[in-house]
Amino acid sequence: MLNLEDLGEEGFLERLATWVKTRNPAVRISIGDDALVLRDGTVVTSDSYEEGVHFSRLYFSPEDIGFKAAAATLSDLAAMGAEPICFLLNLFAPPRCEIDFLKRLYSGMEEVCGRLGVEIAGGDSVASDKLILSCTALGKTTDPLLRSGALAGDLLYLSGFPGLSRVGQQALRRGVEGFEDAKRRHLRPQPRIALGIALRGKVSACMDVSDGISTDAGRLAKASKVKLVVEYERLPRHPELLAFAEQYGGHWDSLALNGGEDYELLFTASHDLPDCIADLPIHRIGRIEEGKGAFLEIGGELRPLLPKGWDHFSK
Amino acid sequence: MLNLEDLGEEGFLERLATWVKTRNPAVRISIGDDALVLRDGTVVTSDSYEEGVHFSRLYFSPEDIGFKAAAATLSDLAAMGAEPICFLLNLFAPPRCEIDFLKRLYSGMEEVCGRLGVEIAGGDSVASDKLILSCTALGKTTDPLLRSGALAGDLLYLSGFPGLSRVGQQALRRGVEGFEDAKRRHLRPQPRIALGIALRGKVSACMDVSDGISTDAGRLAKASKVKLVVEYERLPRHPELLAFAEQYGGHWDSLALNGGEDYELLFTASHDLPDCIADLPIHRIGRIEEGKGAFLEIGGELRPLLPKGWDHFSK
Repeated sequence: MLNLEDLGEEGFLERLATWVKTRNPAVRISIGDDALVLRDGTVVTSDSYEEGVHFSRLYFSPEDIGFKAAAATLSDLAAMGAEPICFLLNLFAPPRCEIDFLKRLYSGMEEVCGRLGVEIAGGDSVASDKLILSCTALGKTTDPLLRSGALAGDLLYLSGFPGLSRVGQQALRRGVEGFEDAKRRHLRPQPRIALGIALRGKVSACMDVSDGISTDAGRLAKASKVKLVVEYERLPRHPELLAFAEQYGGHWDSLALNGGEDYELLFTASHDLPDCIADLPIHRIGRIEEGKGAFLEIGGELRPLLPKGWDHFSK
Repeated sequence: MLNLEDLGEEGFLERLATWVKTRNPAVRISIGDDALVLRDGTVVTSDSYEEGVHFSRLYFSPEDIGFKAAAATLSDLAAMGAEPICFLLNLFAPPRCEIDFLKRLYSGMEEVCGRLGVEIAGGDSVASDKLILSCTALGKTTDPLLRSGALAGDLLYLSGFPGLSRVGQQALRRGVEGFEDAKRRHLRPQPRIALGIALRGKVSACMDVSDGISTDAGRLAKASKVKLVVEYERLPRHPELLAFAEQYGGHWDSLALNGGEDYELLFTASHDLPDCIADLPIHRIGRIEEGKGAFLEIGGELRPLLPKGWDHFSK
């Protein structure tokens, strides 16, 4: 019998889309984008963070865990260009979990939510062996950015520096000194809310990069039914990414293409965009053509860009 | 150090309300009711269902698991009098979980959602040791039923028959024949959506009974700042509840007061209501007075109604 690890996450989501049929006229965007959108502009997203999978208490403080779960969830609202409103947490925690630990976890959530004017509302709490945060965030926009609008001739952009979070994770795991930008990016990612709002009306497609460019670029190409080309020479290289790759023998390009959890925005536009939007550096990293699939252009040659980012179920 | 099992679920929720401070003007009802309500009438609720805690694969079919998780989540919308729109699932499943099992689980969700015109939208999927369903449901109403509106002089009502789900659970666990109504109520609870909508404008307070009358009546009394009296003689007694108590030595009243997961509505009104609303039997089970706390009136005497329903964290 076929199981989840045979299909992988992407294969499972494809099956899932065939199992559910009900259509409610109040729903505008359902499965297949970063978040659900109702016709009245309400945007809803739901995400889960599990100890050992998404965070480790070895190097995440309780505040970091709360901050990252809230930030990563709000990143889906940023990807839609929505203004965030509120946040709900379904908490799974061991009965012996200390109240002080939870207080600190909520204070990390409050830090990111407070800054963005997001209200932390109720939710559910359930006893569990492992700490799991199942998060829901609500926002509003009547003009959502979608994954499906890229057109041949568009240019491909990315905010910030890809691979930084993975560098931070590796530096934290190995107990390496320095790499402070990378560590901060891994522990305390910033949801690009202001950027998402600034991109409304300016871009043809948008999504957040949570599983790595190599995986997420393929998703954008598929949703827009276009061919997406990442130009190798254009990939931005953060100094800490280069330094880490040099010191620890990894490839900077593999970290940049496959490292996930940066929570930057990947988007397409029909015309040149400024180098900086909403105070963030923006890099043009490629282009959109007629056709299908995601490719890496390196030395003038096109190679398929294989999804080597995170897959929860693959073997 | 204080931990979750010292505080219990209720104590934890009280602490939590002091930790979160941000207030967003778009939020109308935040912590303390069955669901979150935005000023534009959007109603959102989030609930979690964990294998071994909320369901057992020993007697739940995959369809039952999906059905119950969706129905229980939608019950929070019923409690607010909201019209349901859509449903999101964050799925935690072992990588070796069979696709056919998940297909059947989704078909159970589709069964309850399809009947109510609710669209199953995206969500998240994460590898996990245990099967966990973290569910979010969205609905709409500009006139939400709240827990906080009960007034002295109001009458207290309950839909359906309390304790039936607990009887069903016990019969299923023990492999007892019969008790079909009770088993059905446990495996396939019906969210009282039509009743909730019918109660708009007719009731002063409303909530769903998910943790048992003894626990939930105290919550309603607290939210409304009133004294709530359950009149023992008025508690409805389903024939299967009486038969089970007689055959297996339990007390019918303990099952009726403390048995959770019936997903019936508990509500208050300033005037008599009909015996049946939206095709459901309605029972007057008590009254509201000045004061505070929840009480059971038995043989003319008032006794505190102790919350003996389900608490996820208590020792």
